[in-house]
Amino acid sequence: MNVEGRHFRTVWMDGPTVRMINQPLLPHGFEIVDLPTFRHTGEAIRTMIVRGAGAIGGTAGYAVAQAALSAPDRGFHAHLAEAVDFIEHTRPTAQNLFYATKRVLRAIEAQGDDLAAARQAAVAEALAIADDDAACCEAIGKHGAELVPKGARISTHCNAGWLAFVDWGSALSPVYMAQRQGKEPFVWVDETRPRSQGARLTAWELAQEGVSHAVIADNATGHYMQRGDIDMVIVGSDRIAANGDVANKIGTYSSAVVAQRNGIPFYVAAPTTTIDPDCPSGGDIPIEERSGDEVRWTWGWSEDGEFTKVRTTPDVSTARNPAFDVTPAELVAGIITEKGVVPATPEGMASVWRR
Amino acid sequence: MNVEGRHFRTVWMDGPTVRMINQPLLPHGFEIVDLPTFRHTGEAIRTMIVRGAGAIGGTAGYAVAQAALSAPDRGFHAHLAEAVDFIEHTRPTAQNLFYATKRVLRAIEAQGDDLAAARQAAVAEALAIADDDAACCEAIGKHGAELVPKGARISTHCNAGWLAFVDWGSALSPVYMAQRQGKEPFVWVDETRPRSQGARLTAWELAQEGVSHAVIADNATGHYMQRGDIDMVIVGSDRIAANGDVANKIGTYSSAVVAQRNGIPFYVAAPTTTIDPDCPSGGDIPIEERSGDEVRWTWGWSEDGEFTKVRTTPDVSTARNPAFDVTPAELVAGIITEKGVVPATPEGMASVWRR
Repeated sequence: MNVEGRHFRTVWMDGPTVRMINQPLLPHGFEIVDLPTFRHTGEAIRTMIVRGAGAIGGTAGYAVAQAALSAPDRGFHAHLAEAVDFIEHTRPTAQNLFYATKRVLRAIEAQGDDLAAARQAAVAEALAIADDDAACCEAIGKHGAELVPKGARISTHCNAGWLAFVDWGSALSPVYMAQRQGKEPFVWVDETRPRSQGARLTAWELAQEGVSHAVIADNATGHYMQRGDIDMVIVGSDRIAANGDVANKIGTYSSAVVAQRNGIPFYVAAPTTTIDPDCPSGGDIPIEERSGDEVRWTWGWSEDGEFTKVRTTPDVSTARNPAFDVTPAELVAGIITEKGVVPATPEGMASVWRR
Repeated sequence: MNVEGRHFRTVWMDGPTVRMINQPLLPHGFEIVDLPTFRHTGEAIRTMIVRGAGAIGGTAGYAVAQAALSAPDRGFHAHLAEAVDFIEHTRPTAQNLFYATKRVLRAIEAQGDDLAAARQAAVAEALAIADDDAACCEAIGKHGAELVPKGARISTHCNAGWLAFVDWGSALSPVYMAQRQGKEPFVWVDETRPRSQGARLTAWELAQEGVSHAVIADNATGHYMQRGDIDMVIVGSDRIAANGDVANKIGTYSSAVVAQRNGIPFYVAAPTTTIDPDCPSGGDIPIEERSGDEVRWTWGWSEDGEFTKVRTTPDVSTARNPAFDVTPAELVAGIITEKGVVPATPEGMASVWRR
């Protein structure tokens, strides 16, 4: 997607160097980080310079390619195995990371003892992973845009935009596609406390693409639904169970409940790789509880442009911080995948998932 | 209520001086402000050193008493009228402010030309207004506590505690009463973006009273309701329509909708003065829209203890900031008033309102 009118992906490879957008600096600084080795690239995953399922997968693939390029001929496979072990430990709960490392490893192994060919295949496969992610998200956009009426006012939560993938995004891809089709959508951007990914990343993406939008406190979404100011909701997902239950950023569930009461269709946009056939229902999805400090402190930019944090709660008060919640399938109007829009039902999920 | 084990009211009078808790400093600083004249006291209302319906009413009554004390014998009534005009323009949408100024004025007028008696009556009436507010809130606590089971896990939104009144509070009064009755309630405190009154004030009040609690992002409330971790909701109200519809801090509506879905009783605690017989339904309540800067910037304390703000949104992004929303009466399990718990219906409202 566009940044100041120029096309960027979230992460790409330039010779042996991996380059990526420094996401923690957004929206107040735009900077490209150069990562010369797989160790630098792995650290960028660990420290969340890059985040989001698709973007982590793309980055991990590039990191394995870097490891293949730098591994010496002597002990090539041992070096590579060590590098992959390092990369896989940077964000051990990110499914796409393992998918990407395995895919590049398989491409390397297919070249047998021809190490030059193996290195070339590694780079080509990493690029293919990134291209596949971008193409998958673009297809989500095409299917999703068919659901978007002209002038639609769309609510979204968190950041399921192109910054979370290699390009296009999931929930925001139909918005970008509708914008290109001249439908002039308007987006209500949930701030998305406690980490403010909506205020920081979604608002920035939309501004760069010229999509009209307004940032609101998460508390205000229900009010605008009640007033008839929201026509549809599109959110992303971290994991979809085999019955269509959807795990996504904390607050998604409340948005879905209030949308239902007000007769507003609630869509989830996600690649079919998000569907977990081994997870029978939402109750089987473990909910990560993160540090209460994310609630106690709010990060942002001071008037002097310094990235810093302020505390709102009393020192003695406990804070609880579940990172995700589960939206029951019955509240979901449809899952927008790269293969089309399917109902959030066992049959709908089985019709598109990849084992 | 208690601050470090000592009883305080939000505002009180000490000779000719009005004293109050400096609320913007909470929770990181506790300071008493001395206001020697009605002008200082009026400015404290305007600059929100004190906020909340009951506390503003109590303060306004004391300010008129100060004006009566300082007005010279010659031109007493003209001086007083000018002072009241100044006081009434500090927060022109606060109903309780006008109720208090009128009540003290009537007490003064009842003394005819005896100015010494008038001054004495003004101070006595201002004190009576404050005492009435505290007694009213205490009665809300007694009625509300009957609804609170032992060990109840209660969700609340914003700050409808004693800091918003002279003492006890509305939504938190049943909590304090239940705590004194040994019921050991636990409170889920909604952070309440964008102004964080829950994180700052409610959490501080509960900590000072020794009530167990946890601060959560507003996004997490629905999740805990869904998981069965919330037994009841008690919130305050800014205005209740004649049909039982409730205007309260933005986000209250979503909480009520998700509570209903999960079979959790949703109570509103408010003095009967909050009921507006001239307002037929929630649709007739105008919703104040405040500056988007409250969404763009978050205020808090830096690690150096400085009160400052940080920005999360991009410079170019619009932000919208409705201050209140309306919860339909059908979602309200009951209105807890000083006269008892009544249904949120036209009959329930008519049975307790004061014209």
